[in-house]
This record gives sequence, C-alpha cells and structure tokens, in this order.
Amino acid sequence: MSVHRFEPEFFYNTIGAHSPVLHISDGDSVFTNTIDAHGLDKKGDTVAKRGNPMTGPFYIEGAEPGDALAIYLDYIYPNRNWGWTANATAVNVVEPQFIQNLNKREILRWDINLQDGIARISEVAPPLDKLKFSLAPFMGCFGVAPSQGQTISTETSGNYGGNMDYRGFVAGTIVYFPIFVEGALLHFGDGHAFQGDGEILGTGLEVSMDIRFTVKLIKQKKIRWPRGESATHIFTVGNARPLEQAVQHATTEMLHWLTEDYNLSMTEANILLGQCVEYELGNIYNPAYTMVCKVKKAILSEIGQI
Amino acid sequence: MSVHRFEPEFFYNTIGAHSPVLHISDGDSVFTNTIDAHGLDKKGDTVAKRGNPMTGPFYIEGAEPGDALAIYLDYIYPNRNWGWTANATAVNVVEPQFIQNLNKREILRWDINLQDGIARISEVAPPLDKLKFSLAPFMGCFGVAPSQGQTISTETSGNYGGNMDYRGFVAGTIVYFPIFVEGALLHFGDGHAFQGDGEILGTGLEVSMDIRFTVKLIKQKKIRWPRGESATHIFTVGNARPLEQAVQHATTEMLHWLTEDYNLSMTEANILLGQCVEYELGNIYNPAYTMVCKVKKAILSEIGQI
Amino acid sequence: MSVHRFEPEFFYNTIGAHSPVLHISDGDSVFTNTIDAHGLDKKGDTVAKRGNPMTGPFYIEGAEPGDALAIYLDYIYPNRNWGWTANATAVNVVEPQFIQNLNKREILRWDINLQDGIARISEVAPPLDKLKFSLAPFMGCFGVAPSQGQTISTETSGNYGGNMDYRGFVAGTIVYFPIFVEGALLHFGDGHAFQGDGEILGTGLEVSMDIRFTVKLIKQKKIRWPRGESATHIFTVGNARPLEQAVQHATTEMLHWLTEDYNLSMTEANILLGQCVEYELGNIYNPAYTMVCKVKKAILSEIGQI
Amino acid sequence: MSVHRFEPEFFYNTIGAHSPVLHISDGDSVFTNTIDAHGLDKKGDTVAKRGNPMTGPFYIEGAEPGDALAIYLDYIYPNRNWGWTANATAVNVVEPQFIQNLNKREILRWDINLQDGIARISEVAPPLDKLKFSLAPFMGCFGVAPSQGQTISTETSGNYGGNMDYRGFVAGTIVYFPIFVEGALLHFGDGHAFQGDGEILGTGLEVSMDIRFTVKLIKQKKIRWPRGESATHIFTVGNARPLEQAVQHATTEMLHWLTEDYNLSMTEANILLGQCVEYELGNIYNPAYTMVCKVKKAILSEIGQI
Repeated sequence: MSVHRFEPEFFYNTIGAHSPVLHISDGDSVFTNTIDAHGLDKKGDTVAKRGNPMTGPFYIEGAEPGDALAIYLDYIYPNRNWGWTANATAVNVVEPQFIQNLNKREILRWDINLQDGIARISEVAPPLDKLKFSLAPFMGCFGVAPSQGQTISTETSGNYGGNMDYRGFVAGTIVYFPIFVEGALLHFGDGHAFQGDGEILGTGLEVSMDIRFTVKLIKQKKIRWPRGESATHIFTVGNARPLEQAVQHATTEMLHWLTEDYNLSMTEANILLGQCVEYELGNIYNPAYTMVCKVKKAILSEIGQI
Repeated sequence: MSVHRFEPEFFYNTIGAHSPVLHISDGDSVFTNTIDAHGLDKKGDTVAKRGNPMTGPFYIEGAEPGDALAIYLDYIYPNRNWGWTANATAVNVVEPQFIQNLNKREILRWDINLQDGIARISEVAPPLDKLKFSLAPFMGCFGVAPSQGQTISTETSGNYGGNMDYRGFVAGTIVYFPIFVEGALLHFGDGHAFQGDGEILGTGLEVSMDIRFTVKLIKQKKIRWPRGESATHIFTVGNARPLEQAVQHATTEMLHWLTEDYNLSMTEANILLGQCVEYELGNIYNPAYTMVCKVKKAILSEIGQI
Repeated sequence: MSVHRFEPEFFYNTIGAHSPVLHISDGDSVFTNTIDAHGLDKKGDTVAKRGNPMTGPFYIEGAEPGDALAIYLDYIYPNRNWGWTANATAVNVVEPQFIQNLNKREILRWDINLQDGIARISEVAPPLDKLKFSLAPFMGCFGVAPSQGQTISTETSGNYGGNMDYRGFVAGTIVYFPIFVEGALLHFGDGHAFQGDGEILGTGLEVSMDIRFTVKLIKQKKIRWPRGESATHIFTVGNARPLEQAVQHATTEMLHWLTEDYNLSMTEANILLGQCVEYELGNIYNPAYTMVCKVKKAILSEIGQI
Repeated sequence: MSVHRFEPEFFYNTIGAHSPVLHISDGDSVFTNTIDAHGLDKKGDTVAKRGNPMTGPFYIEGAEPGDALAIYLDYIYPNRNWGWTANATAVNVVEPQFIQNLNKREILRWDINLQDGIARISEVAPPLDKLKFSLAPFMGCFGVAPSQGQTISTETSGNYGGNMDYRGFVAGTIVYFPIFVEGALLHFGDGHAFQGDGEILGTGLEVSMDIRFTVKLIKQKKIRWPRGESATHIFTVGNARPLEQAVQHATTEMLHWLTEDYNLSMTEANILLGQCVEYELGNIYNPAYTMVCKVKKAILSEIGQI
C-alpha cells in the first residue's frame, strides 16, 4: 500500500487503451494533479489540447475484465488561484425558440481564494460583484478504459465513466467502475471548483487541481454502470442520451445493487426505491447526459441491511 | 378575504372548462378535501372513477387570460389512517432489457399514524417491517383550465399544471400558474403522504387529504409555465416528454423570471444560474414528465436582488 | 347508405365531445368541405380561428366505445385556386446550433391550377419560379373524440388521430380509428394540397378542400392506434413525442394487427415485419410526432394471408 | 487509377486509427470481401469476433483532415449461399408494455440463391415457407476513422459513418464522408442481402459479401455528416440518439448542401426542402439511430440547379 507521487507530462483527450504512465498495486494511493479543461496547468501554461485532457492512465496490477475498481477520492483541491467559466447556457438546455435570446458565449475569469475556499468573478459590475461561492471541488471527467478496445473522446461518457460532470464526485466519495481491460487504465481530469447541477453552461468553475486517490480491486465483481458511496448515500450513475435512458441505466443498476448486495428481494427493492429514491442531474451538455440515482444509507441501516 | 368550507360531491378526471363548484374572490381561502387517486374518500368509500379525480374547479372572480394566479398551499394533511402504493417500478423507468425481471405489479396497503406523522407498510415480512417514513404530504395533481378550451386527462400535465407529482408541493409553498380562461378554474387532487423523486412506481403513498389554500390574483402578469416559491428557493416547473424538453421549459422559464423580475441582465442571469441551479425530478411515469429548476433565495438575497 | 351533403357553419379548434353537427348511419357517405389551417374558406374569408379548425363532429349511429370506425376517404381536392406555406424549417427539426442561420419565417402564397393539378409559388424570383408540384391532396388533421372525455387541441395528435400531417392520407385510403365515445364524433380539417415528409415547415400547402368520406362501423373490434389501408399497403400510425415512442406505438400496433387479423404467430409476424417493414414520417413539428409503419399487401398475399 | 485485389486476414471490431492494411491512391478501386456480423466468412468459418468485424482500414494517399472522401459503391453481392437473421423485434422498437409478448430471440437460417437473386428461410412451416425476397444487398457498417483519435465500436455510428444499416447503401450509390485523419482509413463490413427499414430485428439478412469500391478525394471540402447520391436522389445521413437528433443532423446537413453547392439561398433551400423532403429510417436498434434526408434530383434539375 504505497503512496505514489506522479507528475503528469502529457495528456490524452480520449479515454482508452493508452500506454499507462504508472503501474500501481491494489491498495495504493497516488498523489498527482490535473490540468483544466482547456489544457492550462497550475502556472497557467497551456500544456495540452482542449478539451478535458486527462492525467494517466494508471495501470492497476491484477485488474482484469470482470472485476470492479473502487476509487477513494481522498483529496481534490484547486492548485491555482484562478479559474474560468462560460457565461451562457448551452443551446440544448433551453427551448429552441429561446436560443436567440441567449447572450453571446464568452469566457469569464474568476478569482479563487484558496485559503478561504471562496471564488468570485474577477471583474464584474454590480450586482454580480457581490456573488461569492464556497469551493466544492470535484472531478468532472474520469474513468477507466472502455470495453471492446474503444478509445473515446473525453467530451462524452458511458458505462466506463467519462465526462459525467456530477458535482457529487467530491473528496470523501468512493466511486466504483466496471473493469474492461487488464490494468483498468484509470484516467482523471476536468476538475471543477464548484458548479450548479447539469453543467448547463458547458463549464463548471474550470481549474487545475491537486488530487489524491486510492484504489481497491474487487475481484470478480460484476457491476454494469458506475456506482458510488458518499457519507450519506449509495448511488448509481447512468450516462446516455436521451436523459430518460440515463435514468433507466441508473435506476436499473440501483435495483441490481439492492438485490445483489443488500439482501433484498426484487419486490422489496422496488418498494423501497419507490419511496426513497433521489435523482440528481450530472452533465446535460455533452453527447451523453448523466443522471444519478441515490438511496440514503440511513434507510438501509434502519431496515438492518447495512 | 373570506374563508370558505367546501365539501366536494363529484369529481372530474380531467382538468378543463367544467362548471365551477364554487366562486371565490381574490385573497380568499378555501378549506376542502381531496380523495385518493383511485377515487376513495376519507371513509374508504369509492366516490369517483380512477385516476386522479379532482376537487373543483374553483372559479376565482376577476381572473382573466393573461393574469397569473398565486396559490398559497396553507395546509395539506391526510384525513384517514391508511394509504396505498404500488410495489413495482414503472416499465419506462428501467432498461427495456430489465423489464422482465421486475416483480408483478400489486397494490400495497400502508398504515398512517396521523398523530405521529409516520407511515409503515401494513403487513410485511422482515426486513421491510422495520421501514417507516415521516409524512411529507403534498399535492400530486393540480392546476388551472388549459388553453384553447381544452379538457385534459389528469394522467398528464402541461403549462397549466396537472399531474406533476413533484414532492416539493408541500404546505407552505406558493405556486403560480398562468391563467388561460376566465375564472382560472382551479382543480386539486391526487394527494401523496410522501414519495421518492419521480413517482417511479406510478404512485406515491396515495391518500385522501384535508387541504386549505388561499388564492391571490396577479393581474396582467405573463408567465409561461408554473412557478413556485418555498422557504428557501424559487423554482420553475417544466412538464413535457421527453425529459430534456421538461428541462428546457423549466430552465427557460427561470431565465425569464430572473431577467423580468429580479433585475438581472440576460448575461447575469445565465452566469448566476450556471453556478447555482438545482434540478429536481417530478413525475417520470405519466405521459408528460416533470422537471423542476430551482435557485436558492439566499443567493438572490446575497446579490441584493430580493 | 345515404349520401349527405353538409355545409359547415362553425369550426372547433379542438377534437372532443362537442355537440355533433350531423348524425349519420353506418355505411353513409358525407360530402362536405374543410377550411384551411388559418380558418380561411374557399372564398378566402376568415370564418374561424387558427389553427386547424375542424368540420364536424359527425355522429355515427350505433358507434360505441370498443368498436372501430373505418373511414373511406373517397375524395379530397382543393376548392380554391390558391394556398399558402411557410418558408422556414421549424426550429425543432434542425440542430440547435443552426437555428440562428434559418431565414425569418414568413407566409408564401401559391397558385393552384385546379384543372391541371399543379401548384406554383405565386411570385418568386428564379430559380424557384421554375418549381412546380403535382397536387397530392390529403387530410392533415382528422380523428374521433378522445378517451376519458378529453377535448384536445388540433395542434397535436394521439391514439384518436388528430394532427398527423401524414401525406399518405389521400383519397382512396381507408383509415381505422378506435372509438372512445358514443357516436365516435368524427372531425376533419387541415387539408394540404401536397407536402414533403414531416411537415417540417410547420405547413403543407394549406388550402380549403372539398371532401367526401364514407363510414363503416366494425363492432367490438379492439384497435389501439389508427390503422390504414392503401392500394398497396396496410399501415399503422403512432403519435407521440419523442419520435422513438411514435415508432414503438406504430410497430406494436402492426404486430397486433398481423397476429390478430392475419393469422400469423408472434414469431412469424416478427420475422415478416423485420424483413419488409417500411416507415414513413408524418408530423415532426407539433407536440406529438407521427410515425407510420407499413407492410406491402403483396407480401401478405404471397404467403396466402390475404 | 489502379484496381487492387485485397484478401482480408484479420478484422477489427472498431472503427479507428488502426494500421492500414492497404495504401491506395485517389481514383483507385479495390475488389475485396467482407465477413458477416458474427465473423463468419464465405466458407462459414469463424474468422473474427462478433459483432460487425471490419475489412480494412484502407489508407487513401493524400487524404487529409478537412477533405471529403467520395466512395463509389461499385459492386456488393453475397459470396455464399446462406445467411441468417434474428426472429424477434428489438425491445426498444416496441412499447415497453409489449416486450413480454415478444417471442424469444433466436437465429434463423436462410438459403440464398445467388443466381436467381432470391432468399428464403431454410426450414420453416407454412405460411412463411412461401415467403421469398429479392436480394437488395447493401453495406450495413462502413466509415472512416473518427475525429480526435477515437476508436469506436462497430455497434454504433456517428459523423464518421459506422453501423448505419441504411438499406439505401446499395451498389451504384456514391457515399461521401468527412475526413478526420490522414489517409481517411476506410472500413467496410456487416453486409446485408436485404432488410426492412430500421433493422428492427437487430439484423438484416446477414451474409459475407464480395465488394468493389472506388475512392475519389475532394480536397478541402467541408461536410459535417455523411452524404450520398443515388440514381434518383441526393441524401444526407444523421446518426444519433434520440431519433429527433438524427433528423436534425440530416436536415441541417441537407440545408448546408443545398445552400453551399446548389446555389440556393437559405430561404430558397427551406422552401424547396419543405415541399419535397423524404426521410428514410436506417438503424433504430443500436446505440445511435440513423435518419436519412432525401431530395429528388429531378426537382433540382427542374429548377436548373443540376
């Protein structure tokens, strides 16, 4: 259970079967960093191409197709004092008739106070000069090499993860991915200092990040879509377009989870889920949309299943 | 500003241009009750046809097309000590390939302790016998007569409200509807004692309710979709299929609201919304789906706009 | 088997449980006319409100819920020498990013030569001055009163018919609707002199029409969606949004038809349909979209099923 | 302008930046063959993995990103006397409620009479024993390496082509693709001896094929989606899910084509398209759906634009 320090030198704009940059073992941790969605690093230098260049991939020894990979997001925090967002809602998130009313899309610079954990727009007239947000940093795009030897743009997402832009992927969260290739080949990038639901501007507060993660292999564990665990919830992630299909994947995976790992019959799982399910919207900007299906751990605990 | 008591005697399964059951004035309150989605009243007697029979419509004096109607949901609480849910997720909410794995759909009876505000399944084996939920009663289906003289089934929803099944419509909430006909013609029904997001079983905890509401006319106020206000948020409601379109309606209506009533430019409204928007899923079972777009009042207050 | 002549005097913009304008018997024919989608009659006078005002409803004696209604479209032809179209594709039919490139939507007048059966744009610069189309007149919007006592705008469509804008509904076609109310209550309107697939401009060549139809009751015949029969094909019609759902309704109804009326097992019907199905796009402009699923009669004949 | 003969020895199940199997020049022709969707060759031997293994890629000398590639489909014909189909409609093509009524999915063998150009099910009871279809062979899956260095499963499709299963891709057709990588990297496979619209069973009549094609480079020609040309039509191809989005891509690309290459203004292109557009459904089975947008050459000729 070593801790590795890894300084990335080049970055892929796809997730797939690239040569690994580091081999690590089950239980190991890695302290590394990610650059922003336009390829700017902590010094503001452009070191990679747009969009969403990835740090990695990391090869996990012993990982095989059919296993699941647990990733403990130990630490995620901006490593520079500024970031940027867009300023206009994406055309696919408003009514077609309204698109012409949207303002012209431009980039907006934000100041990040790393000590206080606060961000503000750098130069802006009232009333937005009074706007300030607490940082809630998360990974926008991460995942493992997809099935069938595919190499897929970091614009989109699928059962292998990818550009999910779900603001629940904060430090303290455990994320589970199915493994499709030997070594799993884990990629990270597109950190956001905070964001509303849906990434409706096509950006969060885009910034380079220092991150630390720990991997744990679960041998011969079949999962079909990403899963996660926060302090309060278990959750599943569906990535697809249209949005209904993302709902279907996330809901189906949750029913699998409740019946396969929580000792509930199909009927019990359905009754439970119907009363307590919570949905949260990840990315609704990119080719695939993301919907998250959540169940409170307290409820599973109440009925003695955890 | 009178308070009316109204005891319903018949119930429509459509929302539309029916003869009003009561005429009330701007500012008036009505104390009345609703029956459950299958037409069962507080005594358990079947007094109307399935599904979602409505109490009303109430005619608001002075209401005209082009006005908006504010409805203060003063009180919503079950008036009997039992309810029911389905026990299987709707076929459109899981992957098509998974449908055959779902349990057979049956009706499940629940006991409601009105004093403690708790519900449990009436007779069920472990571990679900330990399951209990706090009541969080809300209106599943309500709205005003639609545009163009339409009369529409209470299964579905639209810009006039309808079967939105959004669990945010609890007592204490203000809801705004556009008005399409003289008198507005307000209908209420389909109360749920609680429910997860999405009404994914096709039911909440279905129960008859005592309700009290107060109406307030806003003359010559153009809104295009339902809006609402809770203690903490303003919100807009989009009702459509596919779900993307519901997102588009809700998001567009929020941009209208922020720019027309909160003194923000289009650019400012977009910047703000991108960073702080929250989405919540109402009905994803019936012909039209419901998506809610929310903004925290605290943020609007922080920038001095409320 | 009488032939009625009916001259309409007022027109509904909804399809539903309106008072019938004429009672007819099983086997009867009606010779009447329809006005255009903006309410202009054969003289060019505005005699009704936009959009899609309906002639009817016609009450068919003996029609009851659970029956099906066969409508023989005997004759459909423009009764004036001009019509109109829009000139810009609907915003929902192009990529959201492209909408701003579309030309401004305006109305274009066309000359119709009733004798030669040809239409041309009235005044237009080269090269469109050379454009001429043969008339292929059809009914854009027609149907029976919907289920549950609903009254629904002629903008949209459903299992009761409505605004399907399918250019296959020409004279010579038989159309079948499920019957939801006593008398069926048949409405007709929105005639188009011709049109491309999809009604992508939101208009066909809009014109008032002389029409003749004959009705035939099929007692206790369960169909779920509109069906039709041309000289060469049998077809089913799905009306819904999103378009996938329209495909699902039409395909499912065709499988019902093949297994219930053509003496094929489910497996046989599936094998057959997979090899020979044809789809045609009706309306992709209005709230509900229309997809038509067709099977060649020659194939059914080849295998001895007709 | 050489003619190459190429005998494939291995087959990729993805379309992407694989090492080319043959370098050819602008104007060259290639005579080669493809194996069926399950990897069976002309002798019935399994020589590759499921699904849709590709012959190629072929590197076209001088092809660069920003160019377009014209592919003349000179010859496509089965090279063995049997094929196979599935026997059940895909679950996403019928109503969710109907899925349980579908027959169990099995594989069906067909005899192909290569001389007469006729196919029949090999062993089947009446009445399907009388069913016979004329061959109408086409390529189900072909395209060029995608943008951004992606390598994508042959299950799906995009602006680079892929698994479109459009039955219009017969011999005699010219197909145009945008070029994303040097050499274009052209792949071919998944031949179908015939098929209904939509590939609703998830298969056409799957068979190995002899094919001949000729390539022609169009330097610095920007197209955004596949285009094609038959004896009678020009057409564009949109590949996406949901189906509406495929319609949007195809329609937008057609408007680009008409305004950029046929000397029509945007208004003229819209007027024309609205009156004469035809849509045809390609694949509605796989991750991305395919819609084709067609315009008759005769109409373009009538107005003097070709």
